[in-house]
Amino acid sequence: MATEKEKFLAGEPYNVMDPELAADETKARRLCKLLNELDDTANTEKEQLIRQLFGSVGKNPYVQPYFHCDFGYNIHVGDNFLCNYDNIILDIAPVTIGNNCMLAPHVQIYAAYHPLDPAAREAFIGLGKPVTLGDDIWVGGGSVILPGVTLGNNVIVGANSTVTKSFGDNLIIAGNPARVLRKNPNQLKK
Amino acid sequence: MATEKEKFLAGEPYNVMDPELAADETKARRLCKLLNELDDTANTEKEQLIRQLFGSVGKNPYVQPYFHCDFGYNIHVGDNFLCNYDNIILDIAPVTIGNNCMLAPHVQIYAAYHPLDPAAREAFIGLGKPVTLGDDIWVGGGSVILPGVTLGNNVIVGANSTVTKSFGDNLIIAGNPARVLRKNPNQLKK
Amino acid sequence: MATEKEKFLAGEPYNVMDPELAADETKARRLCKLLNELDDTANTEKEQLIRQLFGSVGKNPYVQPYFHCDFGYNIHVGDNFLCNYDNIILDIAPVTIGNNCMLAPHVQIYAAYHPLDPAAREAFIGLGKPVTLGDDIWVGGGSVILPGVTLGNNVIVGANSTVTKSFGDNLIIAGNPARVLRKNPNQLKK
Repeated sequence: MATEKEKFLAGEPYNVMDPELAADETKARRLCKLLNELDDTANTEKEQLIRQLFGSVGKNPYVQPYFHCDFGYNIHVGDNFLCNYDNIILDIAPVTIGNNCMLAPHVQIYAAYHPLDPAAREAFIGLGKPVTLGDDIWVGGGSVILPGVTLGNNVIVGANSTVTKSFGDNLIIAGNPARVLRKNPNQLKK
Repeated sequence: MATEKEKFLAGEPYNVMDPELAADETKARRLCKLLNELDDTANTEKEQLIRQLFGSVGKNPYVQPYFHCDFGYNIHVGDNFLCNYDNIILDIAPVTIGNNCMLAPHVQIYAAYHPLDPAAREAFIGLGKPVTLGDDIWVGGGSVILPGVTLGNNVIVGANSTVTKSFGDNLIIAGNPARVLRKNPNQLKK
Repeated sequence: MATEKEKFLAGEPYNVMDPELAADETKARRLCKLLNELDDTANTEKEQLIRQLFGSVGKNPYVQPYFHCDFGYNIHVGDNFLCNYDNIILDIAPVTIGNNCMLAPHVQIYAAYHPLDPAAREAFIGLGKPVTLGDDIWVGGGSVILPGVTLGNNVIVGANSTVTKSFGDNLIIAGNPARVLRKNPNQLKK
């Protein structure tokens, strides 16, 4: 019979009160707290903590305080990840972010959700769906990205948007819910 | 003649610079600061601080950092209150939350507002209206609930919504301003 | 040839990785951290730190934790500036706020933005446009004000709004994007 952590890692519903998973969350929260309390110039120590916290990290990660996540090991970021003030990533499922991505302040990425059925919520059932951002994404301040969303490459998300569905490459999206404002005339050339 | 605190407690306009009320706010902010700085596993100390801070608390309260409120004693929560990262409750008037409620990160509940008349704002007049949430409410991340709002039981508020008016039972609401998306097919059975 | 800081101060595109500007940001972040950690009653020390941090400050500034800004010296506030919990001001360009202004919690003022061209973002090009708020502005909780916006006097911005363009005097605006809800029947008389 699968443990709650095995169910969690398999992307199945799990019990959010499971002690093994709670210990993982405590570990992540302690690393976040250490990271958030470092001086602005402590770049070496910051990078070490980010590499301990996240599942995988490219070159030059940059995370400003006060950053929160749940597990950390489900977060995978490429090169030049820039995460500004007060970001939250609820990484119940994998959150995969490409190269050269910038998250403005107060961005929230939710790979976590809850059952619609109140009886299941009362039973502490947790649910997750992966979030995947391509390369050269810029997410505007205060925006929220919901479970299951995939964004292509070179997508700009306007400030305070709510991204409820997936979008392709080279787009500028905004609004609540986010819609395509226009194509980005500057395509990503690689 | 009524003191500013007596006016405040009676739900009448009051002066936000009143020293007696400022002392109450200082007490609440110090308790929040202590709560926010505790280690993730300090569950007994956390629960004690939540019980000191709030007006009334059911079983199993859970409040993640960094939580802010103004007075604390105007907040009343039922059993299994789950308040995730970076929530703000401006409890100028009573904020009453039922059993089995979950607030995702960055949720803001405002029982506080200000006069439309700039002369009254310059005179530091504060205003409040109660906020009441029923049982089994789940408020999505980044949502804002405004003064005077009542939500029934088993209401799900989509992420980044702005709840400007009251809604009944068993609904899924979302948007800015929040509107009914659909009925929740899973009714609350009690 | 202009230094990056000279370009920055002239309102031109600049390199966000410039060491001279990074040192300015570190200075501002350390002042914010000191300010955010003070006890609620440490009003004299708070005011001293706000005066060190901001470019200019009127009478009676009031800034609650956790406040973040980038440079500080580009922020200019009039008398009775009231800045509630968890505000963020990205002052890449001047952010000028008149007298008797109130920012509710989680307000974000962005004078910073990034190029649409991903190649320019990868080259760390920073861009800024000034934000100017008149007198007697009240910005509702969770609202975002974007680069280049000017608001007149006595403008009320509804909670969780996204202000993408400029507006005149004596208005109530709200929404994503913010639109005029109605005129404020209480005009500012000076």
